[in-house]
Amino acid sequence: MSAEIKGLNEECGIFGVWQDEHAAERTYFGLHSLQHRGQEGAGIVTVQANGRLLEHKGLGLLADAFSKPEQLAQLTGPCAIGHVRYGTAGTHGIENIQPFLFHFAQEDVALAHNGNLTNAVSLRTELEQDGAIFRTDSDTEVLMHLIQRQKGADFKARLKASLREIKGGFAYLVLTKNALYAALDPNGFRPLVVGRLDNGAYIVCSETCALDTVGAHFIRDVQPGELITIDDSGYHCEPFTTETQLSICSMEYIYFARPDSTIYGVNIHQARQRMGRRLAQESPVDADIVVGVPNSSLSAASGYALESGLPDELGLIKNQYSARTFIQPTQELREQGVRMKLAAVKAVVAGKKVALVDDSIVRGTTSNYIVRLLKEAGAKSVHLLISSPPLKYPCFYGIDIENTQELMAANYTIPEMCAKIGADSLHFLSLEGLIDAIDLPSHEPNRGLCVAYFNGDYPTPLYDYAATFKQPKTATKVMQ
Amino acid sequence: MSAEIKGLNEECGIFGVWQDEHAAERTYFGLHSLQHRGQEGAGIVTVQANGRLLEHKGLGLLADAFSKPEQLAQLTGPCAIGHVRYGTAGTHGIENIQPFLFHFAQEDVALAHNGNLTNAVSLRTELEQDGAIFRTDSDTEVLMHLIQRQKGADFKARLKASLREIKGGFAYLVLTKNALYAALDPNGFRPLVVGRLDNGAYIVCSETCALDTVGAHFIRDVQPGELITIDDSGYHCEPFTTETQLSICSMEYIYFARPDSTIYGVNIHQARQRMGRRLAQESPVDADIVVGVPNSSLSAASGYALESGLPDELGLIKNQYSARTFIQPTQELREQGVRMKLAAVKAVVAGKKVALVDDSIVRGTTSNYIVRLLKEAGAKSVHLLISSPPLKYPCFYGIDIENTQELMAANYTIPEMCAKIGADSLHFLSLEGLIDAIDLPSHEPNRGLCVAYFNGDYPTPLYDYAATFKQPKTATKVMQ
Amino acid sequence: MSAEIKGLNEECGIFGVWQDEHAAERTYFGLHSLQHRGQEGAGIVTVQANGRLLEHKGLGLLADAFSKPEQLAQLTGPCAIGHVRYGTAGTHGIENIQPFLFHFAQEDVALAHNGNLTNAVSLRTELEQDGAIFRTDSDTEVLMHLIQRQKGADFKARLKASLREIKGGFAYLVLTKNALYAALDPNGFRPLVVGRLDNGAYIVCSETCALDTVGAHFIRDVQPGELITIDDSGYHCEPFTTETQLSICSMEYIYFARPDSTIYGVNIHQARQRMGRRLAQESPVDADIVVGVPNSSLSAASGYALESGLPDELGLIKNQYSARTFIQPTQELREQGVRMKLAAVKAVVAGKKVALVDDSIVRGTTSNYIVRLLKEAGAKSVHLLISSPPLKYPCFYGIDIENTQELMAANYTIPEMCAKIGADSLHFLSLEGLIDAIDLPSHEPNRGLCVAYFNGDYPTPLYDYAATFKQPKTATKVMQ
Amino acid sequence: MSAEIKGLNEECGIFGVWQDEHAAERTYFGLHSLQHRGQEGAGIVTVQANGRLLEHKGLGLLADAFSKPEQLAQLTGPCAIGHVRYGTAGTHGIENIQPFLFHFAQEDVALAHNGNLTNAVSLRTELEQDGAIFRTDSDTEVLMHLIQRQKGADFKARLKASLREIKGGFAYLVLTKNALYAALDPNGFRPLVVGRLDNGAYIVCSETCALDTVGAHFIRDVQPGELITIDDSGYHCEPFTTETQLSICSMEYIYFARPDSTIYGVNIHQARQRMGRRLAQESPVDADIVVGVPNSSLSAASGYALESGLPDELGLIKNQYSARTFIQPTQELREQGVRMKLAAVKAVVAGKKVALVDDSIVRGTTSNYIVRLLKEAGAKSVHLLISSPPLKYPCFYGIDIENTQELMAANYTIPEMCAKIGADSLHFLSLEGLIDAIDLPSHEPNRGLCVAYFNGDYPTPLYDYAATFKQPKTATKVMQ
Repeated sequence: MSAEIKGLNEECGIFGVWQDEHAAERTYFGLHSLQHRGQEGAGIVTVQANGRLLEHKGLGLLADAFSKPEQLAQLTGPCAIGHVRYGTAGTHGIENIQPFLFHFAQEDVALAHNGNLTNAVSLRTELEQDGAIFRTDSDTEVLMHLIQRQKGADFKARLKASLREIKGGFAYLVLTKNALYAALDPNGFRPLVVGRLDNGAYIVCSETCALDTVGAHFIRDVQPGELITIDDSGYHCEPFTTETQLSICSMEYIYFARPDSTIYGVNIHQARQRMGRRLAQESPVDADIVVGVPNSSLSAASGYALESGLPDELGLIKNQYSARTFIQPTQELREQGVRMKLAAVKAVVAGKKVALVDDSIVRGTTSNYIVRLLKEAGAKSVHLLISSPPLKYPCFYGIDIENTQELMAANYTIPEMCAKIGADSLHFLSLEGLIDAIDLPSHEPNRGLCVAYFNGDYPTPLYDYAATFKQPKTATKVMQ
Repeated sequence: MSAEIKGLNEECGIFGVWQDEHAAERTYFGLHSLQHRGQEGAGIVTVQANGRLLEHKGLGLLADAFSKPEQLAQLTGPCAIGHVRYGTAGTHGIENIQPFLFHFAQEDVALAHNGNLTNAVSLRTELEQDGAIFRTDSDTEVLMHLIQRQKGADFKARLKASLREIKGGFAYLVLTKNALYAALDPNGFRPLVVGRLDNGAYIVCSETCALDTVGAHFIRDVQPGELITIDDSGYHCEPFTTETQLSICSMEYIYFARPDSTIYGVNIHQARQRMGRRLAQESPVDADIVVGVPNSSLSAASGYALESGLPDELGLIKNQYSARTFIQPTQELREQGVRMKLAAVKAVVAGKKVALVDDSIVRGTTSNYIVRLLKEAGAKSVHLLISSPPLKYPCFYGIDIENTQELMAANYTIPEMCAKIGADSLHFLSLEGLIDAIDLPSHEPNRGLCVAYFNGDYPTPLYDYAATFKQPKTATKVMQ
Repeated sequence: MSAEIKGLNEECGIFGVWQDEHAAERTYFGLHSLQHRGQEGAGIVTVQANGRLLEHKGLGLLADAFSKPEQLAQLTGPCAIGHVRYGTAGTHGIENIQPFLFHFAQEDVALAHNGNLTNAVSLRTELEQDGAIFRTDSDTEVLMHLIQRQKGADFKARLKASLREIKGGFAYLVLTKNALYAALDPNGFRPLVVGRLDNGAYIVCSETCALDTVGAHFIRDVQPGELITIDDSGYHCEPFTTETQLSICSMEYIYFARPDSTIYGVNIHQARQRMGRRLAQESPVDADIVVGVPNSSLSAASGYALESGLPDELGLIKNQYSARTFIQPTQELREQGVRMKLAAVKAVVAGKKVALVDDSIVRGTTSNYIVRLLKEAGAKSVHLLISSPPLKYPCFYGIDIENTQELMAANYTIPEMCAKIGADSLHFLSLEGLIDAIDLPSHEPNRGLCVAYFNGDYPTPLYDYAATFKQPKTATKVMQ
Repeated sequence: MSAEIKGLNEECGIFGVWQDEHAAERTYFGLHSLQHRGQEGAGIVTVQANGRLLEHKGLGLLADAFSKPEQLAQLTGPCAIGHVRYGTAGTHGIENIQPFLFHFAQEDVALAHNGNLTNAVSLRTELEQDGAIFRTDSDTEVLMHLIQRQKGADFKARLKASLREIKGGFAYLVLTKNALYAALDPNGFRPLVVGRLDNGAYIVCSETCALDTVGAHFIRDVQPGELITIDDSGYHCEPFTTETQLSICSMEYIYFARPDSTIYGVNIHQARQRMGRRLAQESPVDADIVVGVPNSSLSAASGYALESGLPDELGLIKNQYSARTFIQPTQELREQGVRMKLAAVKAVVAGKKVALVDDSIVRGTTSNYIVRLLKEAGAKSVHLLISSPPLKYPCFYGIDIENTQELMAANYTIPEMCAKIGADSLHFLSLEGLIDAIDLPSHEPNRGLCVAYFNGDYPTPLYDYAATFKQPKTATKVMQ
């Protein structure tokens, strides 16, 4: 929680396993540890004993999608891929839940995808004009049509040719009876790792936390532009393109990934702690205590406390039980709806000057509420400290910011934001500070990070989005 | 979570409101903030416009029990009581979900109960022999039969006479079209507070966190042996018995209550922090970092860190999404089931000597797992520090410890426990330390706390349980 | 269907079996053949191996209430009772589905009931004033409270004493671990029969069709005022009262019972055929063909055709699939809702003078619709012939006619009815004709039939209903 | 019911409406009257105000698929198509429920299909080799791919070209925002009619009973090889091929269609009555009464009775409530499962020689059961009279007889069948008798009927089925 209490969403988590006696259960456990990447649907596909692929998918959390033992028990095969999904507007039906399973005369193929393609619309239009029929609104399906229309009998050759046609951010898992393929876009926008179980089975998944959960050891991060092939002869890495440039999404480090995951060698919790430390160096405030917004900002708050010497206090409590939102007849009750998620610990904050640490500001409305909550609980002042730069630009590679109208920082100056939020002061981590704090061991631009939502500097052409995206005039390139 | 990862359960949370336009929604919000007290069922009863009472109840979390808007929307009346329930073995049916609603010719009555009666079986036998027919297996229902068989037309008089007949731990809410009654047992084993909304409506509920969630201000803790009557003329307090002695359940402070709640003037988070400080004084260990078991032990861990000067680190991550447990075909997969709940942050604990703080040890099996998890993540040593004394005796007042066979501390010495758990050392807070740390402003025995599960010294006769409870020979009275 | 397309409903069907290896399945099959007696809920209770009783109940048809194999499979005991229910207004909750199961310290007791008690309200008031707490709104439960409050340890003696206190129409099944009891009211208002399987197990149930379905042979009709006790020593009949007078509900013969059932020696199909024949004698009409309203009036139509010499034609088709009624936005679409149930066969009726035979007129609105349907299909004329007398008075013994406002015949003369219905002529069977046609081998008044809904002549005092029932001025006693 | 108690199934019913304010409700009502054609799934698609198509589909009966008001209420557009489905083995998932809805960039298209294509497998293989991706296993989808791959912008031209490529039996509805198309295969194997509401809206549907139900008047039967286009300018008929030969499925007259429907000018009920009359001429038997197997054989039984002069009696009762079949632990209970559907009226059949009329024999096992049921009820003898010829050959045009192993008549002589069934004699209607009785006003072979399942004489090449279909040696061509 947070990114201003889930105003911002990742689009997916993926998990695959090859040759494990408990493939479906393993995938279930792995997906459960990736549940933070998507909560609107889940599915698992296995290669069954007869060589055909079998699926089960459902809406909601993994525990909802797999609510009966037989739903998992029927998936008996030793190779599997799975997916947890965050659904963007208008695409909430069960038919959009992944993996997508395609039955062909020769063999079945299943796809699971994390990311967003930037040329999906134009590819789809071309394909439809050539007679293709799509079953979903999802851009994921484009890849299957491309593969199917390539000439030649070699599936991997057709897959590689197709991967070169799609643009944007993508981490794909492709399952057939013969192999499990994993492919990462040429910028490596989304994380993807390979690991192995003690029984020899290979795992490919979004984050290392899933490897830990299923008891696998880490082998390597998949590199930008790579295709991994896992089959009964082992695992093989090869580039499907040589035009690559690492631009891993910086929001993975700031907010999306789980604190116990490590991406390209950098542990998430420690990166956030360093963001908090750097923020304390850049923006010291007059406070008695540091309070982090649970849970995603606790690491940054701890860093701010360590660097500033202020005590790190449990001033906000998150209710661990999910709350329905349909009960909102009046403004007064709506506020109580928010109170269902967060509570202030009066005994801690009463009479105190509070340094409140959060990871981002999206709409600002929840920030305003949290500040008010602390003041009603008796805080003398609340200084809001954000462990990342202002979010001003859309993302086209897999985060659900497609326009800037709802982004507070795209529409207001920092003093305006501070006034609207009602904080006594408002501070953001600088872009340089962020890049330094993450400290990726890379010599690529921005040290291998994508920071486009902060500075509008996209590492790729925007293809289908180029026409509609108008770069805001207020954009200030920070790093040049 | 914790009390060794939910091996120990509270039996209920209750909430009532009188004369609020949004009574059912308010109760829903209040119950949501009390969800940690019971997750197996929930219900709400309102006094409808026609003077009759209407209910909706369901199994599971509040969000499951009220899964459709109309289920709440039909409860339109301005007075309500609600209940969240933890069900003990064999009583899981929908018919045991509270509140219990009774339709009589004259008027309807609803009951909601938190606690456990110690003479329910003998009262029930007497009542059945006299022709009573019970609808449930729950001891809650006994009160209604007692009320109904009292002579006289004055409901409150019959209620008071009945309250004097029941023994044990109880916080009862009783709703009629004329009044909302709240009654607390003569020892005040369970917490119960009164508050008020700005619109004048009165609230009675288990914890102050529910008052904060619904926007009510705190008025007072209900006192042992008190009956509170709330009706259209205001609220009235009176004793139904004068033989009282405060013995509030110390496990409320140690584990059950929410950190932002305050019971008899003592904030839970701060009490836990003091337990951690005292533990550091009593049991310093050779460690590099302090790690608390999330979430309930984070306060104690913070106290241990502050007192010891060691850094308080986020070494364990709790998965915030609930995990189904039906997928457990093999021992190996069963361990992964536990890994679904907790993960170690390798980057934090690798190479470190860890002071691991937890609130209690129940069976010890999960403690063993957590120690192993940390060591597999590279911890050099793990010292397990428990912020309460060893749990050795059953509770008869509302916690689900009815026998001691499963309690590790009732069956093993501390060195044996340490060996079984695999920790490098194991330390418990002393009983004196616990009582001092909670620091209740009371002159009653044990400063107003019930600590019977630690020392076998029950503050009341045990009635129906007296025959079966054999005090273990190893029991050592600590406080005398 | 019919009784003017289900404007009239039976209240229940009951089935019990003692010592059959497949007791629950047998009860399921038996209840399925009694489904026409109640479609709003069903339940089965078995005596399990441990001597306790176990239940499963659900809303809707039997197939809905038992929608999962395990719901029936768990009911493993060799003795069972079951119930299918039609729910009167305001009592639709799951808590009113029978059998009712009561857990006592000594033993469990289950009750299933078909009928309506006429002194339930006054008995309930007395019992509540004496401290009883009822769990449902159902009058069924009264019997259990009476039993429980009788003195003495002999269950059968307490049951017999209690049966003498209740008034009205009732067929009760009472199941304990020691015996299955079946009791019929002193007038025998509702049918109840005993049978036996080839494996020696005894069956008690509402109609003989259930005996045939489960493969049992008929032993005898339970007689008015009898208590049957079935236990491991066999079956025993004894009167619980000697003040009896057979008054079996004539609507069982006219409409409720299944055509293949036989009650007190009279087969239902043949009784209806005789009603049709007698109607042809009493009311010949100028027609080309006879058309019965499917399915309940087909027997009477066949009798009318045989007697009149007119061809019996399939002029109306019933859609065998149930239709939801929630789709009724406009008057036009509402009529189509009715068309979902019945259709005219144009090729049969076009240009024909039709003798339309139905069993009763309740509200008359559906009769009007059916006449219109036939005329729109081209019928030259439609003569409506009802194989029973006009329904004018309420029933207090188990049919859901509790007031006469909705009964067309209680409010209009026959010519008025004919005009409103739009028929070319309208004829009812005479009361004498009905009694002769049923031809019960009895010397009791009305030859053992209750015909009170036709003539207002109730065979018992009305107790709780006496005050509110105002005998309509237009009442004409036919039989005196 | 019957075709030996549903051993034989139709594959679908379809319904479409253009420009009706209540299009979805109308389709719901229409589909309800076509429910006998398919009970495993149902769906409706409407053209919404924005020009896009919206669907709702579900498993089970229409009332199950549309179990909540909003499921229908959301379908607000004025043009709709709907489908009820019988699913063949292995294709039971929700993804196979029709209509199939395809979203394209330019416009959406929905398809509903009744029938079976004989060249679907080869077309699909070709299409997949050319890059097509199918979403279902259904042959219905082939048409959409063919349309999509035709050149040219004119949808109707592409549709007509595609219709010429598919072979077998088909009645297709195709819905776009611009028009509703209805197409019938060149043999007219399946029925399809056009009608009109008083409000001017056009209807196309499988049977005239659906026109009657929704209040539409009949315009015409769609002719073999015709494409009907309904749009805002009216309705237009045109052939898509001139190579046509009427071969309407004779089983529609014998068993599938509803008695009140009329196909190519012949009313179903009357055709069946004529089959019964002809059967009486061909096969008089020594009987006291005629009994029809309810409900589908009642018309034929009535004809047999009229012609033979024997009384038509209600000797078998059908339970109108559906029975679950999962309760079948033993052979004894399995028989009771069948008894749940049918019961003999002992009072009618005891001591009688019975002429039992049924429409067909499929497996013969249920025939055997019915004969036994009558004999156990006391019938002196049972002569089984089948109102159609022996079923010996598979159907490839839309009935679920794809192999002959289960067809009793394909494997045994008539005397062998009679012995196995246990009847006193067994008689089938002759093929000539059947064709004469249906009496279609056509000069095509077999007077416009397909009778291939009786004589193996298929009116078209069998394409994909030609290789696997081995014509049985015992086949005797009747009509040559």
